[in-house]
Amino acid sequence: MKLAMIGLGKMGINLTENLIRNNNEVVAYDLSKDAKADAVKLGAKVADSLEEVINNLDTPRIVWVMLPAGNPTNSTVDTLSELLDQNDIVIDGGNSFYEDSLKHNEILKNKGIKFFDVGTSGGMDGANHDGNFMIGGDDEKLFSYIEPIFEGIAQTDGYLYTGKAGSGHYLKMVHNGIEYGMMQAIAEGFDVLTHSQFEYDNEAVAKVWSNGSVIRGWLMELAQSAFSKDSNLEEIKGVMHSSGEGKWTLEEALKLQVPTPVIAASLMMRYRSLEDDTMTGKVVSALRNEFGGHDVDKK
Amino acid sequence: MKLAMIGLGKMGINLTENLIRNNNEVVAYDLSKDAKADAVKLGAKVADSLEEVINNLDTPRIVWVMLPAGNPTNSTVDTLSELLDQNDIVIDGGNSFYEDSLKHNEILKNKGIKFFDVGTSGGMDGANHDGNFMIGGDDEKLFSYIEPIFEGIAQTDGYLYTGKAGSGHYLKMVHNGIEYGMMQAIAEGFDVLTHSQFEYDNEAVAKVWSNGSVIRGWLMELAQSAFSKDSNLEEIKGVMHSSGEGKWTLEEALKLQVPTPVIAASLMMRYRSLEDDTMTGKVVSALRNEFGGHDVDKK
Repeated sequence: MKLAMIGLGKMGINLTENLIRNNNEVVAYDLSKDAKADAVKLGAKVADSLEEVINNLDTPRIVWVMLPAGNPTNSTVDTLSELLDQNDIVIDGGNSFYEDSLKHNEILKNKGIKFFDVGTSGGMDGANHDGNFMIGGDDEKLFSYIEPIFEGIAQTDGYLYTGKAGSGHYLKMVHNGIEYGMMQAIAEGFDVLTHSQFEYDNEAVAKVWSNGSVIRGWLMELAQSAFSKDSNLEEIKGVMHSSGEGKWTLEEALKLQVPTPVIAASLMMRYRSLEDDTMTGKVVSALRNEFGGHDVDKK
Repeated sequence: MKLAMIGLGKMGINLTENLIRNNNEVVAYDLSKDAKADAVKLGAKVADSLEEVINNLDTPRIVWVMLPAGNPTNSTVDTLSELLDQNDIVIDGGNSFYEDSLKHNEILKNKGIKFFDVGTSGGMDGANHDGNFMIGGDDEKLFSYIEPIFEGIAQTDGYLYTGKAGSGHYLKMVHNGIEYGMMQAIAEGFDVLTHSQFEYDNEAVAKVWSNGSVIRGWLMELAQSAFSKDSNLEEIKGVMHSSGEGKWTLEEALKLQVPTPVIAASLMMRYRSLEDDTMTGKVVSALRNEFGGHDVDKK
């Protein structure tokens, strides 16, 4: 099929390659000239404006937005709602918060434009081939129309129509919440091993655990890959950034009053890792000193 | 090779089948006549006592103990230390606490008997074919002698010599601690989905997450299998038993002062699930009533 790819970052450029390899025609757009040059090398047409993108598509137009969540995606959806015609299709494949996707659905629906919120998993590797897609959208019949796109670029059984608008990004949000917990569990295990009386080869451990164990899976294979480059991860700091989806999962759990202590602790450990020192530590230390005369570490 | 299998429970009987399929001769022993009859069907010789087992082996004898951790394993190792000769080999493939394995190593070493503590992962399925084995033992050279056994019954790259005695069971312990955290993270995600405003098909979700997503792995495939039989798990209660390894991991983390909040919370949630009502709940409820006059739920 013919479609536009708006945003040629790490995910968008790999998706463009995946789409073209699977016999789709891609009209690619990005603010960066270098990114567009890369897309041309992959066989994409490129355009200099969203208007030009749209003029290069057949109706009903299919526009895949692959931009950072929040303002970049929101403003692009707003613009597309002005430029596109009735029955055109907007796919948001980014990591938008599902409540934003519900708003985007309303904005576009008011213009008769169709919307699919697509949670994309599998990393850059998955974007490039055998990806994973969770696809929400109010029009299930129309999903069948765009399904061949996903059939081509996804892993076998690696895409799912998840129901009405918002459900794709919601599912991706929860997927990432689970991911936080799984990653923290794996990390805690290696932390115990590192402090233990035995001497383990982290790469060898991750490798044996990747082959036949109960905890085998892609994250363990990625751990093996990381340890193969730096066996004790001495070259990196244990600072754990996050991009929002774990926080949203926890906020959702709080809203629904679902106890999710592991996802919560995973997120809190990420925040803790961002601090060099903590007010929590100072307060507990000060109180121990106040009631028990215990030593405090002074600056 | 020729070896004995002591204990023909769910794991031992599957290992027996795996060993025989991989051209080993097995002398099998269990207190249960039915279990021995099953072993005979698989092609094993059986014996009526540990003495008879030992008389049917060639020296150096190899005796694989596959019994519940604690007393059953400990007493069997004690008995074997009396019955076996110098240079015979005891393999403990069960889930023994690593400190027990360190004791077993000492007891056997005093008699000149060699010991390997083998953490076994992959479930019953893995015991039967393509299993996963973490193998500790002081005598690395001797490991090469028994390595062909593991090469046959393990998944490719699914066995590892982990170092001195105790290190195999220690690694398996930590593996299970990670498993607790990963399982709880997955479970919390499905709990959020179940309470959400969207309607998800749990089996379809586990299936799409098993194919190309970041959180793909064997545990997600098992979730898919469970949901395929009972789409909302309505037939089972959310009571989470445990068999000790998560607790040992946490005790080890406490001993080493390694922060493992996710493994800790996973274990606590298991214990919480065993209680119909909690003293914690009563105390918090009573205090809220005391200071704020908030209602309590009365019996």
